[in-house]
Amino acid sequence: MPPTDTFPTEALIRAAEAALHNDPAVLLQYGRSPGYLPLRELLGGWYGVGPDQVLVGNSSLEIVDFIARTKLGPGRRAFVESPSYDRTITTFRRVGAEVIGIPLLEDGVDLEAMERALKAGPPALFYTVSDFQNPMGVTTSLAKRQQIAAWAKQYGFWVVEDAPYRRLRYWGEDVPTLYSLAPEHVFHLSSFSKTLAPGLRLGYAVATPQAIAELAAFAVDTYIGPVLPSQGIVFEYCRAGLLEPNIEALKVLYGPRLKATYAALAQSMPRATWSHPEGGFFVGVTLPEGADMADLMPKAADAGVKLSDGRGFYPNPADGNRFLRIPFCSVTPDDIFAGIARLAELL
Amino acid sequence: MPPTDTFPTEALIRAAEAALHNDPAVLLQYGRSPGYLPLRELLGGWYGVGPDQVLVGNSSLEIVDFIARTKLGPGRRAFVESPSYDRTITTFRRVGAEVIGIPLLEDGVDLEAMERALKAGPPALFYTVSDFQNPMGVTTSLAKRQQIAAWAKQYGFWVVEDAPYRRLRYWGEDVPTLYSLAPEHVFHLSSFSKTLAPGLRLGYAVATPQAIAELAAFAVDTYIGPVLPSQGIVFEYCRAGLLEPNIEALKVLYGPRLKATYAALAQSMPRATWSHPEGGFFVGVTLPEGADMADLMPKAADAGVKLSDGRGFYPNPADGNRFLRIPFCSVTPDDIFAGIARLAELL
Repeated sequence: MPPTDTFPTEALIRAAEAALHNDPAVLLQYGRSPGYLPLRELLGGWYGVGPDQVLVGNSSLEIVDFIARTKLGPGRRAFVESPSYDRTITTFRRVGAEVIGIPLLEDGVDLEAMERALKAGPPALFYTVSDFQNPMGVTTSLAKRQQIAAWAKQYGFWVVEDAPYRRLRYWGEDVPTLYSLAPEHVFHLSSFSKTLAPGLRLGYAVATPQAIAELAAFAVDTYIGPVLPSQGIVFEYCRAGLLEPNIEALKVLYGPRLKATYAALAQSMPRATWSHPEGGFFVGVTLPEGADMADLMPKAADAGVKLSDGRGFYPNPADGNRFLRIPFCSVTPDDIFAGIARLAELL
Repeated sequence: MPPTDTFPTEALIRAAEAALHNDPAVLLQYGRSPGYLPLRELLGGWYGVGPDQVLVGNSSLEIVDFIARTKLGPGRRAFVESPSYDRTITTFRRVGAEVIGIPLLEDGVDLEAMERALKAGPPALFYTVSDFQNPMGVTTSLAKRQQIAAWAKQYGFWVVEDAPYRRLRYWGEDVPTLYSLAPEHVFHLSSFSKTLAPGLRLGYAVATPQAIAELAAFAVDTYIGPVLPSQGIVFEYCRAGLLEPNIEALKVLYGPRLKATYAALAQSMPRATWSHPEGGFFVGVTLPEGADMADLMPKAADAGVKLSDGRGFYPNPADGNRFLRIPFCSVTPDDIFAGIARLAELL
């Protein structure tokens, strides 16, 4: 979770006033998916597309569910990074899909493993968090993105590029999105949960007009239209020019916490290895040989350190037995040093 | 749709200010289904239950979808009234369920037909809009509710009681809810779409603690938590004592429109028959023999009268060939007389 004290409450109150004052007849009435037109126009502008290529929904996770329900099903295959976002794995399995994990390396998935999996049977879709991955923190390199885009065209599968952390780069250079490399084959997803406030549940998809129309038709059958006042709030907040300064302030807060995480790991866990993200929310740690999450979880809880079970992020849970996700954004550097030192003692 | 000018915009702006001012750390942060605790406590109070028996989501239609996904599936049967809410039929069929229509009479479903259907194979659930039904307008009598409640217990099926119109009674007396008659076997659903503003997408379910917990677990896997600021807005709006006066004002507006509908039908369509609701949004009309929606729809459109195709409300569309749903709430009495007279000429 992002730290609660980063939420720009007063600015959001003013945005709510502006939204409901300016457009009550739309924001309070039944609307239909794909969502609030002014916000879709604004978001489309970020990607150089029209509003017919943008769907705004009640969380990007639910958009993943809509994609799963329309593109997957029993007997269909979904490729995910291994490890991947645990909730996505649940979503795919819930619709009966076969989830195939492709091992994730420091610069994106293992291409040889992906090629073998493609030859064994192409998937309906490949889900990737290409920037500052959850849970590993790694960013897929341009070369790997190009290969994945080429395969998407060759084998005819969809890439679901989930990019909620992309704007939170603390140093280094952006890599082009998969969407920019294969716009006909990619659902680019993002949200305001990490850049503004997650309680808004404001997620969106960018894709071809036809793919968005199909997704919107499914969404209409699910809930008619998304919750609209929050879409108005985010529209007015962005229109007032407040989002970019908010993101800059978050970077100033989170960047030093990422650096503290690296320093603490180097100091306390020299035998572990870890990813080296330049942004996002997470550092992925592989604990030294002999470590075991099943053993560590209760000991850490007793020592006052809350851990996510690394095994939950892997399609094959045993693969995550030494995997630790460190979420550094809500923790001060002092607490990062203290927490990692305490974990190191337990190891 | 409710008339746009009924939305209490200024009061909702003040409620938004109050909500985000009072509880930003909860309303802007990740929450989890079943939703915002203060609102669940308030709604539970209406039904005499605790917050563990209330789930608040992003529209009651989506809650129907959650129920369908957890209780129905290929090979399972769902009973619905015939006619029924068209979107529910879509939702049930989308998960592979077999939808069985039970003919709807002026006082609820035909019990003999329901008994035959039960004996042929009990359903996983029975979906009913028991008050001021959509699209027929009829209210299920107490005697029929008691029989349905008894069958739910005897055959072990769920009743999904969708009650968004219940509070909009313009005359006559409330009938006890199915939920009050069989609380262990009923999901009682309602929303603020008809009593406040549909753009909020504020729907909720009341059921046993276990049924709500199961539904909430499914919702967490779908979107983690619902959109929260709108839940805060509705909580503050209700807490300020504004909902009851709003409902009273709506009754003052809508009641005469319902009476005008009856007068216009009697005047212009004496050969048709119609339901006699004492509230809600709709009067259901059976057009005279020889009428045909397929023929009437384009003629009405040419004459400037928008119709919903009556066939869409029936599990077996041909059954709705003479069925007309008249939504009277957004239309002034003058327009009701003019519209029905114009339709009568076409017939």
